[in-house]
Amino acid sequence: MSLRPIPLGAAKITGGFWQERQEINRTSTIPAAARRLEDAGTLRNLRRAAGHEPVGDGFAGKLFADTDVYKWLEAVAWEQTRSPSPELADWQAATSSLVAAAQEPDGYLNSYVRLVLGGSRFGDLEKGHELYCAGHLLQAAVAQSRATGDQTLLEVATRFADLLCKTFGPGRTEGIDGHPLIEMALVDLYRETGTSSYLDLASYFVEARGHGLLEPPGHHGPAYFQDHLPVRDVRTLAGHAVRALYLAAGATDVAVETGDSALLDALKATWQTMVESQTYLTGGVGSRWYGEAFGDPFELPPDAAYCETCAAIASVQWSWRLLLATGESQYADLIERTLYNAVISGVSLTGREFYYVNTLRVRQGAFADDQRSAVAGRQGWFGTACCPPNVMRTLSSLDQMIATSDNDGVQLHLYAPARIQAEVGGAPVGLEVATRYPWHGRVSVRVTESSGEPWTLGLRIPAWAEDCTLTVNGVGQPVGPLRRAWAVGDEVVLELPVQARRTVPDDRVDSVRGCVAIERGPLVYCFEQLDQDVVLDSVSVAPGSLTERERPELLGGVTTVEVPARDGQTLTAIPYYAWANRSVGPMTVWIDAR
Amino acid sequence: MSLRPIPLGAAKITGGFWQERQEINRTSTIPAAARRLEDAGTLRNLRRAAGHEPVGDGFAGKLFADTDVYKWLEAVAWEQTRSPSPELADWQAATSSLVAAAQEPDGYLNSYVRLVLGGSRFGDLEKGHELYCAGHLLQAAVAQSRATGDQTLLEVATRFADLLCKTFGPGRTEGIDGHPLIEMALVDLYRETGTSSYLDLASYFVEARGHGLLEPPGHHGPAYFQDHLPVRDVRTLAGHAVRALYLAAGATDVAVETGDSALLDALKATWQTMVESQTYLTGGVGSRWYGEAFGDPFELPPDAAYCETCAAIASVQWSWRLLLATGESQYADLIERTLYNAVISGVSLTGREFYYVNTLRVRQGAFADDQRSAVAGRQGWFGTACCPPNVMRTLSSLDQMIATSDNDGVQLHLYAPARIQAEVGGAPVGLEVATRYPWHGRVSVRVTESSGEPWTLGLRIPAWAEDCTLTVNGVGQPVGPLRRAWAVGDEVVLELPVQARRTVPDDRVDSVRGCVAIERGPLVYCFEQLDQDVVLDSVSVAPGSLTERERPELLGGVTTVEVPARDGQTLTAIPYYAWANRSVGPMTVWIDAR
Repeated sequence: MSLRPIPLGAAKITGGFWQERQEINRTSTIPAAARRLEDAGTLRNLRRAAGHEPVGDGFAGKLFADTDVYKWLEAVAWEQTRSPSPELADWQAATSSLVAAAQEPDGYLNSYVRLVLGGSRFGDLEKGHELYCAGHLLQAAVAQSRATGDQTLLEVATRFADLLCKTFGPGRTEGIDGHPLIEMALVDLYRETGTSSYLDLASYFVEARGHGLLEPPGHHGPAYFQDHLPVRDVRTLAGHAVRALYLAAGATDVAVETGDSALLDALKATWQTMVESQTYLTGGVGSRWYGEAFGDPFELPPDAAYCETCAAIASVQWSWRLLLATGESQYADLIERTLYNAVISGVSLTGREFYYVNTLRVRQGAFADDQRSAVAGRQGWFGTACCPPNVMRTLSSLDQMIATSDNDGVQLHLYAPARIQAEVGGAPVGLEVATRYPWHGRVSVRVTESSGEPWTLGLRIPAWAEDCTLTVNGVGQPVGPLRRAWAVGDEVVLELPVQARRTVPDDRVDSVRGCVAIERGPLVYCFEQLDQDVVLDSVSVAPGSLTERERPELLGGVTTVEVPARDGQTLTAIPYYAWANRSVGPMTVWIDAR
Repeated sequence: MSLRPIPLGAAKITGGFWQERQEINRTSTIPAAARRLEDAGTLRNLRRAAGHEPVGDGFAGKLFADTDVYKWLEAVAWEQTRSPSPELADWQAATSSLVAAAQEPDGYLNSYVRLVLGGSRFGDLEKGHELYCAGHLLQAAVAQSRATGDQTLLEVATRFADLLCKTFGPGRTEGIDGHPLIEMALVDLYRETGTSSYLDLASYFVEARGHGLLEPPGHHGPAYFQDHLPVRDVRTLAGHAVRALYLAAGATDVAVETGDSALLDALKATWQTMVESQTYLTGGVGSRWYGEAFGDPFELPPDAAYCETCAAIASVQWSWRLLLATGESQYADLIERTLYNAVISGVSLTGREFYYVNTLRVRQGAFADDQRSAVAGRQGWFGTACCPPNVMRTLSSLDQMIATSDNDGVQLHLYAPARIQAEVGGAPVGLEVATRYPWHGRVSVRVTESSGEPWTLGLRIPAWAEDCTLTVNGVGQPVGPLRRAWAVGDEVVLELPVQARRTVPDDRVDSVRGCVAIERGPLVYCFEQLDQDVVLDSVSVAPGSLTERERPELLGGVTTVEVPARDGQTLTAIPYYAWANRSVGPMTVWIDAR
């Protein structure tokens, strides 16, 4: 079974939780990032590389700084599908032509290589990030072409990709990049242009891993670079989490496009291991600060969690590809869990500050030894600023993940107020979704267009939704896909049991043994010290009913959950994504329940 | 109360557990290291710096590689007090004269600076390790002078130290080293030579910290370099564990020598926090791989534990200084715990392989992503080879820690077959200790010399020894210091209850909640998968008696402990220090007991 994305713009979030985040992203985050990219010297790097400014003191920031611009450009592109504006169009035009001007005659483009390395290319595939930078350029270009029709970046990208095809592969330079991403990007470009050599090169880059093409770096072993095993031999992810997940997503693209079911099976098995034993309750992945790496199975300490925002986003990208490839709702379940928790905890409610690391526990007296530490609070920007523009492009493109179609019908994966226009068996289908999810469990789906031929409407039932009900025009239905000749005005109502629940951890996770967490619908909750009368580090929760309160004035409007504690006191939990927006203090997702 | 070390050579381990380790150290580890230092190019660096060889391709290894030689030379020096040999004397003579030849005319000495930096000094105090290298040179020099009377290195050291006194301090270069050690070393040199400017400089280096003299490094905050707070304002250690502990030891030396009781009180409070909330059951310290750092209080995950061998050694050095300063047995308790577990787990039973990291848990399927990973097994040497020679000098100097004296008598801290010659009130005191500790709890101390004047014999009662008995010439005594006019032939017998016990963790350590560990006397035990019939990762232990078995044929002779498991099976525990000597597989110190 294989699902298709809804054509860009034909599925649109029209209100509610996600639209609020998207509006903040559009009106606050993306404009502020434009200034950050200027202030940090990131755009100046490109102007210097383009010869628009004297080289001066050279290059600002990390050698992959160009990617901050590309990811931001991708967000700017998607945003114009959601909500076009002259400002967005100006940014796109000016920045794209700057990028184009920085491209060298043969298609190569990298401002660090130009400004610092005197143009010497591909000399350090381990750490140079040149193909990684190229990958983000390609992705931005595809987004721009799809979202706005503007071909400026796509021309830059295809010229660069053509150069890469001439440079890398069997019989040419045998090499891979220390930071995967190019694989996914080349398949995107293949899909956009139809040029099969891009797919071939992506396939080469996937298959070339695990054969020792890269020198292991310093202390780290080859897993840091995802060069420890051939991708099809991996069953448990290891090493740098973002690298691992970008590669897995790219390999999934390759498997789908080449019909390589053995590779796809390997990736599905690896995903299963990840979700069962290497994923935090928040959907966050990457247990280790050291090497920004996956831990061993069941190594999921809440306090030491790294859970890089980019890793959560990469996990969503991978799960999305597996959802399309298989149609299995477990992938959408993880997408939802990750988006609502590990991704948006990475940005403040104002949209101006970012967490790089998304811990699940801060103790009293915790010490901030690093800019990325939770205790340091969300930061306006980072020396390595990968996460902020990654959040931007994710929120800007979120409409694309709410629904899919196949030959048989339409599938809803994420619940939000939305209008969806699809095509089933050549006939148009229209849907309008009304819901106050995730705060309320009622999801109403009204048919706004239908041919009269029967088709199937699939509504994802999250794994946590044990007792949901489904009605069509008020008549109860068995929970599952609904096939019928839909008429305009038909209304499907799904009632999801979003009320707060206690979640018990897997016994094999050492550090949360004897604890519970509070969840409510797709939201993971947490306890912040400032909401409690007792010291969080030494409290236990008790059995007893959970009390929910709608608090429109709190944290942009949340439902809090009150939990009885052992000493007769009451603890108050808030959604995890909203933590550290008032002050930064002790916080925990898991709480002792013995 | 303040204790004095026994004069070098006057307290001697004569058999038993520690002598076995010392013999392996002398006959296997130290000679193998001589070859490693040659093979790794570490000695060649010095020959090149000395002009004995052409510079060739420059410098081998990390910029602090000289310290591997210095620590090994320190071990070679101490070893000549224990058990002199022509080979040791040859090594000492040849290597010391090589070091002397590499010294520059004004006293400066650093082969990396000479060979790589063209002699440019102190340009990168953050990461250059120049004073750290100097510190290890000074320590080796003091050891050599004390142990053998040979002044070769001491002359090198004093010339270098004189240069440092001219270079650093108020009104001169205001600066500190990114890696503490020089503080302790300068006080050692002051004690050996009486030159007070060395103490003054040590005091300056201690006080200058925490005032932003160092640029914070990359991602890490200033705690990595121990520059986040003035030492006297620290109450909880943070940042790089070895740096933190070398500094704490040096600051303790300064506090003692300058009579600075406020500084000493701060250090005692910090030690208390460390032992109560930042120390593993093994005595290991440094919870985090990232930054090789202390965790927040109660952040003590067994699987992710870093517990660098050098940090355990540094902890012993610090505790030893606080023991001397205060006479409190808690410091000796930690020394004992750390030596028997976190230090000697760092070396294989053959003495040829080393752990850099001393984890407390390895799961099934754990992935070795780093040369230092427990799963990779002990290694013959490391790119950063700090730990192996640190173990060597620790074992070679261990006799110095077994006992102390003061005006009132003699104190025994570590129990081993030994002969001890001390002076109390100007009169000689002789003791002979017979014991099979730690395997057996009986410690017999026979008086071999006594003036007839009363003096006090103090035998440390470890905190775990709840029901011990004490007799003098067969007559029961209240447990405590014994003051009397001792006669030659008097025998004191201490019976320590070394039988296996279950240890329950502090409730605030998340990751071992609901677990127990097995200890026996000072030894922490662990479960290795290869000794079990059941899968370690999914087993729980049950109440019921622990069965001990003496196994002379196993792991060089150990007592194993059999522990009933929930399913009616039996688990077998071995001493933690001996793990990973047969194969490397799943292992755990803490085990589920619910």
